[in-house]
Amino acid sequence: MEKKKLSIVAFSGDFDKLVAAFTLASGAAAVNYEVNLFFTFWGYNAIKIKKGHSFTGTGFLAKFFNFLMGGLNNVPLSRLNFFGASPKLMTGMMKAKNVATLPELIEAARALKVNFYACEMSMVILGIKREEIIPDIKEILGVAKFLEYAEGGQVLFI
Amino acid sequence: MEKKKLSIVAFSGDFDKLVAAFTLASGAAAVNYEVNLFFTFWGYNAIKIKKGHSFTGTGFLAKFFNFLMGGLNNVPLSRLNFFGASPKLMTGMMKAKNVATLPELIEAARALKVNFYACEMSMVILGIKREEIIPDIKEILGVAKFLEYAEGGQVLFI
Amino acid sequence: MEKKKLSIVAFSGDFDKLVAAFTLASGAAAVNYEVNLFFTFWGYNAIKIKKGHSFTGTGFLAKFFNFLMGGLNNVPLSRLNFFGASPKLMTGMMKAKNVATLPELIEAARALKVNFYACEMSMVILGIKREEIIPDIKEILGVAKFLEYAEGGQVLFI
Repeated sequence: MEKKKLSIVAFSGDFDKLVAAFTLASGAAAVNYEVNLFFTFWGYNAIKIKKGHSFTGTGFLAKFFNFLMGGLNNVPLSRLNFFGASPKLMTGMMKAKNVATLPELIEAARALKVNFYACEMSMVILGIKREEIIPDIKEILGVAKFLEYAEGGQVLFI
Repeated sequence: MEKKKLSIVAFSGDFDKLVAAFTLASGAAAVNYEVNLFFTFWGYNAIKIKKGHSFTGTGFLAKFFNFLMGGLNNVPLSRLNFFGASPKLMTGMMKAKNVATLPELIEAARALKVNFYACEMSMVILGIKREEIIPDIKEILGVAKFLEYAEGGQVLFI
Repeated sequence: MEKKKLSIVAFSGDFDKLVAAFTLASGAAAVNYEVNLFFTFWGYNAIKIKKGHSFTGTGFLAKFFNFLMGGLNNVPLSRLNFFGASPKLMTGMMKAKNVATLPELIEAARALKVNFYACEMSMVILGIKREEIIPDIKEILGVAKFLEYAEGGQVLFI
């Protein structure tokens, strides 16, 4: 029997939406789904290696975008941010309640063999290099390939 | 013949997105789809009973989140809020144009036998109690159960 | 053999999300998917003909919404806007990197025979007339019809 499948386009870089994406991914993988997590655009926030504003884009525009994005320790909360307070606050709440935090969710997804993919076009637009994202990324791909992998399963855009 | 199925993860608490979620849910139910509406995170905005900042979370963090969320009469508009003016404005527009408003959409979804589910993890993180959400919620569940119910149908993340 | 199918609810009017919607639509159409793009709510931003604040809604409320929305040359970036700078900035980055810009993506989608649909309810709420949106819109429809067209394929809410 073919494995059930869940594919998620992780477009948002917001903390709460990344938590949702990873929670769904890990939850599905835990009940034996094949899970594809496709990071695109702001979703690159979740897979950047370096902290801070670290993309080495060649021009001013890329630098500006580096400033807008910030890596895992600096992801905004989609609804309200309060100058960076909320993601930390929520991480605190998650810890206090014994719920996994974002780095733990990423770790869990990795352990549960969730497939990580990154969007080729976003990489080009944002001027990101391969070595700037986590090595767990299985493949850098475009829409056609993503659709091929997603075929026959559920697909979510987050 | 198996019934067609639509399952919606109602993640956002924004007024316009909740309207979209309920419109899709009711529209699908009206043409005889089985519809599952899974409230998670900010989506709890739609199913809280009490008005205002009413979660009885035990700690400061939960209280802070209560402040961020606000129940059905205080849902923000995702794009622009203008200090709370827009949701009211839109409700006004909807009434003026004879289109259902959010409470009416919820009522309609209920009447059309849309299945309401609430996310277990969000409940824990946000410190929400069962009696604080509408009794129409059929079940408090996690990702695995949601995926099981959603299987074989369309799934949307809103 | 039946054609594979991708249907997208284009709810957001944000520049980056519209880029994502059109990129997915065109990418899918390029590998021979049947693609349905359903514009609703803020997504009308992408299909308005006139520039500026041009809906001819009859009342004050519709006028106010005209102000909130702005047509293709004025779409906000979902994450940060900087007084309109970011969409232009991103278009600049896209041009500099030889990636298609939004008008080009729309043009491509059109050329690749992506089906454009517009939401009836949004039209009524926002007081938009048929002649105010691009003629490429194949049909103005509701949820039931959209679900019928989307049946048997993948569906995304963007």
